[in-house]
Amino acid sequence: MIIIKIGGGGGINIAGVIKDLAELDEQFVIIHGANAIRDKLAEDLGTPKKTLTSVSGYTSVYSDEKLIDLMMMTYAGLRNKRIVEMCQQNGINAVGLSGLDGKAIQGKRNQGIRVREKGKLRLIRDFSGKPKAINTSLLQLLLDNGYVPVLCIPIIDENNFAINSENDDIVGVLQAHLKADKIVQLIEAPGFLDDKDDPTSVVKQISKLELQQREEQVEGRMKRKMMALRKLFEAGDVTVYIGDGRIENPVKDALAGKGTTIK
Amino acid sequence: MIIIKIGGGGGINIAGVIKDLAELDEQFVIIHGANAIRDKLAEDLGTPKKTLTSVSGYTSVYSDEKLIDLMMMTYAGLRNKRIVEMCQQNGINAVGLSGLDGKAIQGKRNQGIRVREKGKLRLIRDFSGKPKAINTSLLQLLLDNGYVPVLCIPIIDENNFAINSENDDIVGVLQAHLKADKIVQLIEAPGFLDDKDDPTSVVKQISKLELQQREEQVEGRMKRKMMALRKLFEAGDVTVYIGDGRIENPVKDALAGKGTTIK
Repeated sequence: MIIIKIGGGGGINIAGVIKDLAELDEQFVIIHGANAIRDKLAEDLGTPKKTLTSVSGYTSVYSDEKLIDLMMMTYAGLRNKRIVEMCQQNGINAVGLSGLDGKAIQGKRNQGIRVREKGKLRLIRDFSGKPKAINTSLLQLLLDNGYVPVLCIPIIDENNFAINSENDDIVGVLQAHLKADKIVQLIEAPGFLDDKDDPTSVVKQISKLELQQREEQVEGRMKRKMMALRKLFEAGDVTVYIGDGRIENPVKDALAGKGTTIK
Repeated sequence: MIIIKIGGGGGINIAGVIKDLAELDEQFVIIHGANAIRDKLAEDLGTPKKTLTSVSGYTSVYSDEKLIDLMMMTYAGLRNKRIVEMCQQNGINAVGLSGLDGKAIQGKRNQGIRVREKGKLRLIRDFSGKPKAINTSLLQLLLDNGYVPVLCIPIIDENNFAINSENDDIVGVLQAHLKADKIVQLIEAPGFLDDKDDPTSVVKQISKLELQQREEQVEGRMKRKMMALRKLFEAGDVTVYIGDGRIENPVKDALAGKGTTIK
């Protein structure tokens, strides 16, 4: 079993990814982003995304009802269905599912984000949260019958509302349930970079131990990403491949170790 | 088995529909439209929908790649996922599927529409077509495991491309496969009207024979709708309920015969 995570950047070569996947001999599930087309649609509609900065200094997208609408349009709508279409054109019988469908990805809504406004503390609650569980039986039902699940946000919260969530965290929960032996993460960089501004600084191999050390050296969003990576190993042995999603053979090259391999 | 068709008008009381469905004792599948929100998104993006008028006088939406994008965003994205969310909030374990997902709804692409441009005949081929088959085994797999399929366009053509299609025709193909004993069609009118401009002219009952006579009296889009209705009876005995989707209890009232009943 392989979990394929396709980043939501505009430069990802989706057609190349799907062509590679059509030649895989193993079962796989796909989870994808769509932030580039979401942000573009928001701009085109004259409602650019808003961000919140918490008192602890962490910045996140403000997921109000309007943003969830946009996510349904771009993640579960445009990006998901174009990926499913390309899968079908390559002989992969894909079924696209948001986290709402059959409660495929279940989460817990955040209590709120503490922000400072005009000197006063305020708690702002939006539609965002953490993934907690997967409807494994639905995914297994589809896989057993020859269908490939293509997953995306929004996910469903404890009161059955659609909420935004981080794909890095969802991959963690997927792995806790599916116990894949390989996870491929396709991004808009040649792999994990030692220096984020130097594309030639790809780290070929990282050990589990090294992950923790590196996590302590970075901050902000990168720290969260490193923590999410480290958690992937909690469910058991797995190899994580971080590869360039922009090239001709994103999946093949990642699995061949041309990006970063973590084990 | 009941097939529930929810019209794509802006006035449909979706929450009321779902509340009614939660109390049904029979299996059902949902198919929904979204033309109001599709047209609004197109306007908001400054790309209002284009129509084509064939030399035979029939007008249809010009389904170019951009329109399919919009349909993925609004039918398979926003409308489908908000319906699934509302279903989950009412205890219905819904799974939203476009016709692409698992090839749920398969069709054949139109050869082209003959139009006259500057006095010359031209064949314009867009991404539209007729539904031909349903992946019944996928729908049955979901139903047998307690999931309710929530279907929408686009559907998938013979070369695995996403195409636009008429929901009236899709309901016909669904019925040919599922052989439901009831079909509920929820629209923005109190039922089938004798005079389309007079909402008090609801026809309470229509027989199959009468359908054919009425089909000969009307024209254009209405003729196509009447033909689609008549075809529903070709798969065997069924009762078709045409009801007001804008009221408090759209499904209950339709099934109670408060709209138009055809059998």
